[in-house]
This record gives sequence, structure tokens and C-alpha cells, in this order.
Amino acid sequence: MLTNPRSDRVKAVRGLARRSARERSGRFLVEGPQGVREAVRHAPADVVDIYVTSDAAARYPEIVEPARTAGLFVHEVSDEVLAAMGDSQHPQGVLAVCRVPAPELPALLERDLRLVLVLTNVRDPGNAGTAIRGADAAGADLVVLAGDCVDPLSPKVVRSTAGSTFHVPVVAGLSIEDALTALRDKGIRLLAADGVGTVLLPDADLVPAHAWVMGNEAWGLEPEIRELCDEVVRVPIHGLAESLNLAMASTVCLYASAAAQRR
Amino acid sequence: MLTNPRSDRVKAVRGLARRSARERSGRFLVEGPQGVREAVRHAPADVVDIYVTSDAAARYPEIVEPARTAGLFVHEVSDEVLAAMGDSQHPQGVLAVCRVPAPELPALLERDLRLVLVLTNVRDPGNAGTAIRGADAAGADLVVLAGDCVDPLSPKVVRSTAGSTFHVPVVAGLSIEDALTALRDKGIRLLAADGVGTVLLPDADLVPAHAWVMGNEAWGLEPEIRELCDEVVRVPIHGLAESLNLAMASTVCLYASAAAQRR
Repeated sequence: MLTNPRSDRVKAVRGLARRSARERSGRFLVEGPQGVREAVRHAPADVVDIYVTSDAAARYPEIVEPARTAGLFVHEVSDEVLAAMGDSQHPQGVLAVCRVPAPELPALLERDLRLVLVLTNVRDPGNAGTAIRGADAAGADLVVLAGDCVDPLSPKVVRSTAGSTFHVPVVAGLSIEDALTALRDKGIRLLAADGVGTVLLPDADLVPAHAWVMGNEAWGLEPEIRELCDEVVRVPIHGLAESLNLAMASTVCLYASAAAQRR
Repeated sequence: MLTNPRSDRVKAVRGLARRSARERSGRFLVEGPQGVREAVRHAPADVVDIYVTSDAAARYPEIVEPARTAGLFVHEVSDEVLAAMGDSQHPQGVLAVCRVPAPELPALLERDLRLVLVLTNVRDPGNAGTAIRGADAAGADLVVLAGDCVDPLSPKVVRSTAGSTFHVPVVAGLSIEDALTALRDKGIRLLAADGVGTVLLPDADLVPAHAWVMGNEAWGLEPEIRELCDEVVRVPIHGLAESLNLAMASTVCLYASAAAQRR
């Protein structure tokens, strides 16, 4: 049992909350039972270490047993060590250190992509993570974070995805121009979602393969990005609300797409 | 200018973060420019006092000028006073004390209701507030919080609605049985949204007037509540995600309804 919250190992794990440490080490932090369970299920080869309190080990046999069976390193730690390792205020007794996945857009584009989500200049980790979760639920094939977006492997984004980090490929680090060009070259229609759009969501043709392109939470999509898209679509606001938040808007769009494509 | 963060007035405002103080005083707290602006626009008769720092007064003339024109009490306060009054960590320089509205279900049921959201046993204020915002955006006519729900006038719920508190009537304090009976008696179909549902969302008939009935974030709807409903509908999960969060699920359902009813 690891009991020293000031050990080098604890500091190294805790450090993964910083982007620079993730880039240097090629590792990221997954906190809480849902995320760790999905990592063990869907990406066991990327799980480097699991840290769990004895309480949590008893509470989550569906994590610990498959992890041990798969030969993963499961370390029992004191409550203090777990709290010192994590970024979350409520770590729920379990976290994992995982290898940073390196999905490459060219390889992913060889797949049959029907529904894609592109986020650009999205800064809020909760919104980004919840949008990734919504994309997973709606059955999107790929999520791209382009331009100056939050890091999809920051602890807050990973927590907000509720495990979807391990379900849907998430590509980051491209410019929005490169991302949109690569998608268009594969025959994927580009639908900008923005309040200035002239096509209403229920009127958009969502049957062909397409990508939803969503902009910053506050200011939306820049005009030059909208111009790179085939159509600018607006989620209708029927009441007096100013807008939906980014995660809700993207999930409403993606579910409209799923309904059209799977009818 | 009010400058004493320990004054009785500051304590009284701050106290409105507690349900007991809201019930005793019949007042609640609205924090941030978006909420205060919508209160001034849509419920000026319920605005008791507005507190604003001099910076924020200069930054938000669209709040302060209409408020003064309407004869509302706009008090300039120091940064310390504003911080001491508010519940939020980022008060953004402006808050209001408003009268607790008392929308009565019987009177609201006399209106032409086509789309209603019923939340029951929802405990998370962020989820409840975001669901109210989504209901507003989708054009719902009424939101009912029934059973053991979070108070819709708690500061966190009000912040999460982003002003929708003042756009759509929100009725609270009923039992779920009474709420559902009252809606059914008005000819409103009751659609339970739950992962155990046998009807998929794209297959549900969403044209007639109906209410979406959503349960607790973690455990969903109790069987006895589902049995009170006409149909149990499931939002399809196409990917590997376990679920959508409550606010996303309710917004996806309400937008599907809006698309069907307004086609």
C-alpha cells in the first residue's frame, strides 16, 4: 500500500494535470470509476497504472478484477495518496495513468465516416468533455478538436466525457483549415452550426456523410471558418433563451443527424 | 455607494443562498449580467434591488439604464460588498434580489400547453438549471419540478438557467402524482424518458400535446412513476456511452418534440 502523499510517484501523477507534463511524459490522468472502468474495458493496452483505495477496491470489483486479470498494475493507496494524486475535488477512490493515444487523422479518414464533430476554439473543458460524450452517445465516428481548443486530455475534459474518451477517436492539434480540407477531400459535407445560419436544423439534409463544425462558446464561428463550410445551419431557438450551450447545441445537432441517417 | 461587507443588508442578501431564508423572505438571488438583464426585461415588477459595482455599471448599460428608467432600485456597491453578497465565485459585478414568483399550476393549465417538461427527484442544480434553459430554447410552455427536486430558485440553478428563470414558468413543490394527474386531466400525453423504454425517440409520436417526464440523474424514473405515464421512450445510445446527462437528454427530447410540432 502506498501511503506517502509526498513521494515522487505521487508528484509525478499529480503533475499530469499540466499539459506540459502530459506532453513530456506521454501520459494522462483518468479520475473516477466510470473513466477508469472504460479505460480498462476499451483501451487496456494504454493503461499504465491504476491507483485505488481499499474502500474503492471493494466497491468497484468490476474495475479491479478485469484489470488484474488483464495483468494491469493495480496499486492500493491510502486516501491521502489518492487525494494528492488527483485533480478532482471528489476523486471517488480510483484513478489511472494512461498512455496518450495518438490517433492520426489520415488513418481515421480511411474508415467509413458518416458523422463527425469538429470543435474549434472551444476553451471550456466541461463543455468540450460533455460535447465528446454527446458525440459518443449519438454514434459519431470521430471528434476533431482544431485550432486553439482546450486539451482533450486535461483532467477536467476527461472527467466530463464520463468515459467517452475511450469510446470515440478524438484527434487534436490540427489547424481548422487543415482539418476541414482533409474532411472535405474525403467527401464529407461540412455543416457549420451557428446562430447566424440561414438553414434551420430541421430543414438541413442530414442523410449524407457530414461533419458538424462548432465554434467558441461565447463568440461562435469566425466568418472565415463559416466560409469554408458547405452550409451554415442554425439550431432554432423557439423560446426567449439567447442560445444553448455548446455541448447541448452539438448534441441536439448530432442526434438530429443520427435520426436522419438511421431512419 | 455601499462599502461595508459586514452590514445587515449584505448578510440578508447573502442569506438568500439558503432555502429557509428564501421561504421566509419571499426573495431570491440572481447573479451575473445575463440573469439580471433578463429579470429586468421580463419580470421588472419582481425585481426588488439591483446591486452593481461601478465597473459593472459602466460595462452593462443595457442592464442599468432600463432598470433606472423602470424606477428600479440600483445600488452601487464596492467589489467587496458584491463578493460578500453573492454565492458565486465569479459574481461578474452585478446581482439582483427578486421576489419569489408564485406560478400556480391550475392557472397555467388554462393556457394552451403543447410542450411541457416535468423533472422529478432531480438533485443536481447544474443539471436542473441547464434543463430549464434547454426547455426555454426548445419553446416549452411550462416546466414542473415535482417530488424531491432541487429548489429552482437556489443560486446555482438560477445561474445555470442563464436567464431562462424569467422566460418560462417553473412550478415547484407538487408531488409527482398530483403533477401528472393535473397534466393528464388537461389532455396532455405523458412521455416518460428512461433508458428502459421500449419506444425509441425517433419512433415516438410527438405531434400531440405532451409532457416529457425525466427522473433522477443517477437512477432514472421509479417504476411506479413510469406506470403513470402513457409511454416510456428511450433516447437511443448509438455509441458506447452509458447515457446522456439529464440536461442533454431532456434537451434532445424537447428539440425532437419542437421539430415534430412545428413542422
